[in-house]
Amino acid sequence: MKKFEEKTITTNELFKGKIISLQVDDVELPNGKTSKRELIKHPGAVCVIAKTDDQKLILVEQYRKALERSIVEIPAGKLEPGELPEVTAERELEEETGYGCRSLTHLISFYTSPGFADELVHVYKAEDLYKIEDAEGPDEDEFVELLEVTLEEAEEMVLNQRIFDAKTAYAVQYLRLEEMKKNT
Amino acid sequence: MKKFEEKTITTNELFKGKIISLQVDDVELPNGKTSKRELIKHPGAVCVIAKTDDQKLILVEQYRKALERSIVEIPAGKLEPGELPEVTAERELEEETGYGCRSLTHLISFYTSPGFADELVHVYKAEDLYKIEDAEGPDEDEFVELLEVTLEEAEEMVLNQRIFDAKTAYAVQYLRLEEMKKNT
Repeated sequence: MKKFEEKTITTNELFKGKIISLQVDDVELPNGKTSKRELIKHPGAVCVIAKTDDQKLILVEQYRKALERSIVEIPAGKLEPGELPEVTAERELEEETGYGCRSLTHLISFYTSPGFADELVHVYKAEDLYKIEDAEGPDEDEFVELLEVTLEEAEEMVLNQRIFDAKTAYAVQYLRLEEMKKNT
Repeated sequence: MKKFEEKTITTNELFKGKIISLQVDDVELPNGKTSKRELIKHPGAVCVIAKTDDQKLILVEQYRKALERSIVEIPAGKLEPGELPEVTAERELEEETGYGCRSLTHLISFYTSPGFADELVHVYKAEDLYKIEDAEGPDEDEFVELLEVTLEEAEEMVLNQRIFDAKTAYAVQYLRLEEMKKNT
């Protein structure tokens, strides 16, 4: 048995949407008692730490209905069914920024909200960027504005809360660490 | 009008649980077309980067039903209604680890999954820890195991995917950056 496993007694799928689904499970706890778990299933996503040749970080600003506001994030998007994460990464980079990349490195994959959702985000670093002529634009229901900022500007944006998205905060730290390691 | 605002045409709350609720909104996009948004409302949460006096990071392993497995995370928990995040932080630290802290600093707040959820996580650093006698234990449906690891061990756990949770990956980077800044 897995550590502290919660055994499923019943699963009730209450909603199946285009992107997420919701289920409420009755579970048996390690102590034999029962509880309910409210769970969101998500197809997974990628995000891309994209550095231009002049060492700028590419950010996108977009409206997020869940937050009722626009926020600044690194390029990101959902996995399509059966799609490899690196393919999603290149697609989203092209669609949201118009850039292609000659180098794409997987850095880490992390769960964003393990308390209630199974969304796993694969984080990539894209380098050796080039502008794609006739690049595919964003999805028809997606509107984004591009920003290219220095690492210092990105850090300032974290401090003044222009950036407050987990993957983007991670990206800013990642670049600062990379910079400091290069200089030691 | 906010940039790229998506105006709500109708909101349909399809589920209201103990922790999350689900709504599907019909929205008007900036180009006048309409789309649907599947949205999760969440009360928000805190997480705590807790360093012991001998510079170890406190981690908790717990089963996450959403992932059908146990994972290793920094201590974290949901906000109770009307509760200040710093109060939640101290409470979760006590309940999950048995530690109190004499120093609690807010580092950053970030959205974990802005594509579909409004969960905002407030990240704190806890220092000057002390063991609380008769500490409150975890919630009755919560089972956790404590680990205290060095920064190097935590980094190793990221590399071998024992840690793959966004807030915990952020915490490991945070501590490495703090360490490097101290030495420059």
